[in-house]
Amino acid sequence: MKDMDTRLTARVVAADIATGHRSVSDVVQATLDRIDVMEPQVQAFVHLDPALVRARAQELDAADNKGPLAGVTVVVKDMIATRDMPTGHNNVRYTGVMTGVDAAPVDTLRAAGAVILGKTVTTEFAATGRGGKTTNPHDPTRTPGGSSSGSAAAVAAGMAAIGLGTQTGGSTIRPASYNGIWGWKPTWNVISREGLKVYSLTCDTLGLYARTAEDFTLLADVFDLDDAPQPDTLAGLKIAYVHPPAWDRVEPPMRDALAKAAAALQTAGATVSELHLPDLFTRIDESHDIILAREGRAAFLNEARNQPDTLHSEFLSMVENRRQITPQSAREAYKIADTCRALMDDILSDYDAIIAPSATSEAPVGLEWTGDPSMNSLWTLLSVPVVSVPGFSGPNGMPLGISVITRRYTDRTAIAIGALAGPLFAASE
Amino acid sequence: MKDMDTRLTARVVAADIATGHRSVSDVVQATLDRIDVMEPQVQAFVHLDPALVRARAQELDAADNKGPLAGVTVVVKDMIATRDMPTGHNNVRYTGVMTGVDAAPVDTLRAAGAVILGKTVTTEFAATGRGGKTTNPHDPTRTPGGSSSGSAAAVAAGMAAIGLGTQTGGSTIRPASYNGIWGWKPTWNVISREGLKVYSLTCDTLGLYARTAEDFTLLADVFDLDDAPQPDTLAGLKIAYVHPPAWDRVEPPMRDALAKAAAALQTAGATVSELHLPDLFTRIDESHDIILAREGRAAFLNEARNQPDTLHSEFLSMVENRRQITPQSAREAYKIADTCRALMDDILSDYDAIIAPSATSEAPVGLEWTGDPSMNSLWTLLSVPVVSVPGFSGPNGMPLGISVITRRYTDRTAIAIGALAGPLFAASE
Repeated sequence: MKDMDTRLTARVVAADIATGHRSVSDVVQATLDRIDVMEPQVQAFVHLDPALVRARAQELDAADNKGPLAGVTVVVKDMIATRDMPTGHNNVRYTGVMTGVDAAPVDTLRAAGAVILGKTVTTEFAATGRGGKTTNPHDPTRTPGGSSSGSAAAVAAGMAAIGLGTQTGGSTIRPASYNGIWGWKPTWNVISREGLKVYSLTCDTLGLYARTAEDFTLLADVFDLDDAPQPDTLAGLKIAYVHPPAWDRVEPPMRDALAKAAAALQTAGATVSELHLPDLFTRIDESHDIILAREGRAAFLNEARNQPDTLHSEFLSMVENRRQITPQSAREAYKIADTCRALMDDILSDYDAIIAPSATSEAPVGLEWTGDPSMNSLWTLLSVPVVSVPGFSGPNGMPLGISVITRRYTDRTAIAIGALAGPLFAASE
Repeated sequence: MKDMDTRLTARVVAADIATGHRSVSDVVQATLDRIDVMEPQVQAFVHLDPALVRARAQELDAADNKGPLAGVTVVVKDMIATRDMPTGHNNVRYTGVMTGVDAAPVDTLRAAGAVILGKTVTTEFAATGRGGKTTNPHDPTRTPGGSSSGSAAAVAAGMAAIGLGTQTGGSTIRPASYNGIWGWKPTWNVISREGLKVYSLTCDTLGLYARTAEDFTLLADVFDLDDAPQPDTLAGLKIAYVHPPAWDRVEPPMRDALAKAAAALQTAGATVSELHLPDLFTRIDESHDIILAREGRAAFLNEARNQPDTLHSEFLSMVENRRQITPQSAREAYKIADTCRALMDDILSDYDAIIAPSATSEAPVGLEWTGDPSMNSLWTLLSVPVVSVPGFSGPNGMPLGISVITRRYTDRTAIAIGALAGPLFAASE
């Protein structure tokens, strides 16, 4: 997978369409051809209708005003609603269900000219670790990560320019790391999550995948994100590396990658220091766990009542609160989260960015378990933007990503610093 | 409207069905008859299909296990998704749209045997003050309040036992006050908001209406809410009355009602004192305003991109951030909200409940403006449960409600105290 197809990234396609160098139909056909080659092994899709996609391409080719994403191919995790394709949540009750309306981010992408290519594999309700059939394009014996398995693998395999996933724990950034692509978990709620199945409103976030950092800039424009500092050099930036509370779960290759990343940034002229998080942050993972269990209890009640016999026991256990999480401990968990969020906002105001591992390791072998989200949960709960930068790899040749984290509402800063860091990381491999 | 129909409350219907005293078809027919009489004036419905409702009744009558809400009629605000009726959001783009799936709370109610009766009037996207056609059942020249106008008026007029609304500012509790019925804004996110159009994830909450407090207890069971203290006497309870920051907007009749409510509770043996909120609470309303504007910016982006010519300028203004709310002021607003939420949690641990006005006044004359939500926004942002207790009325004979507010996750306490207070409030009128 070193030869992953970068010709058809969003930026290249948008430029080619704008200059008339290519038609949308050409792009779509090239992508469908690529899918024919890759999909038998990668198994990223749960729904793909080439005729529908070609018709959309023709419609765009005939349009006068095609939009900034004209011809850009997008795959959509199958827990995000689409008006012209079923939305199944990898759950038997929703098989073949048509929602009639697009999720808000899909609606926005369509308005910008994007081609919604198909629906991709998710774990059930994007909630559990139970994987799907998708394999990692770099090694079919390994997981692509989850729950946004299909979108991450499809983008990595060149079967789409952009992938939509979600992140409640580590469901976007971890798969980005495992698949060697760019992942972006925006600031909480700066991109609407309307039409994504709910698990935890406090944590649920749309996630995005691309094969270049520049494609994220294009998406930031389409989603009308706030202006924020976008440095054009690393020299002079103040950057910290962080060992998150679950650092003992990080395996040596990822420890090395973080150290190399810090060194590369320092060599490029950034001031790099280690940041020690305040003690309260040791309780963040526990708080995340409690909040998910509490909010999941409400989120899956209707499923437990309507499909008790087909719902996985993990959901029933949450709905019935078998762990007996008390209201008092829930109130405490929210307080810790709120307090840490305010603290992190202050901490991040002292740095241009911080860096941390995007996962604990290379993608694990096997498709049953989608991997450890402990490097991601804290950033998710803290609402901050995270961009996972590919470039490093481990002893098995599998990719390792580094997270660039900035203050809430400075997504463009994280993308810009990631864009500068990416080539350095790849060069210092 | 002093004669509002209390025979067909949820509790009465559920008991009658359980004992075989009545069939679901009987209940439905009696309700449809009531609608025939009341709807020409009240104009609460945007969708009502008697044949569909009768078929559902027959299905329930034939079922062995009918569920705890068998035959209970429920009206659904038309920004809450329903699988067998269109979900229009009072917006031209969504007219006639079928969502294919029920919103989670509707799904849960159906599983419990409820009869989803029809869809009711909402302001556009439940977001603005622009009203619909619905009139206040107590006086057709006055607003029923908004944005949950139709559900509140339908329940008040006896056209349904239960109404589903939503609250982002004061859209449930204020209409409850204006219509002389019980309103309940649960603790944030203890009832799933899946399938409700998004405006502000931080504030959006499902809201519920009924004509008795006991019906809320039934709903608390169906939605599996946490156990919490449920006193059976007011004697010995510690209750505080609050003058919220926007107290200067409260008109004399509501000031009197709050004073009478405090006196009635005191007479019943409760210890009643005045609670002065910490200074930071004076910034809550401003923070609520900023958070709604920020989150609304993301929530309505797709609408602005897809229907720029038909979308009301209020939404376009939010999407374009014409007020130029900076990320810094948004971060501050969230910090104030988070801090006040923790403070309120501590304050409420010293009381069994606090009481405050549910609205500034009687329902205003005219249907263009749905009234002032300033008595509700702070409780919404603070995530706490609020039960509006009817009983008082103003100089024009229009109802006035009193809010009972308790700690997060103690909804059952608020309902129980409301149930004890309701008859006293009515008697002290």
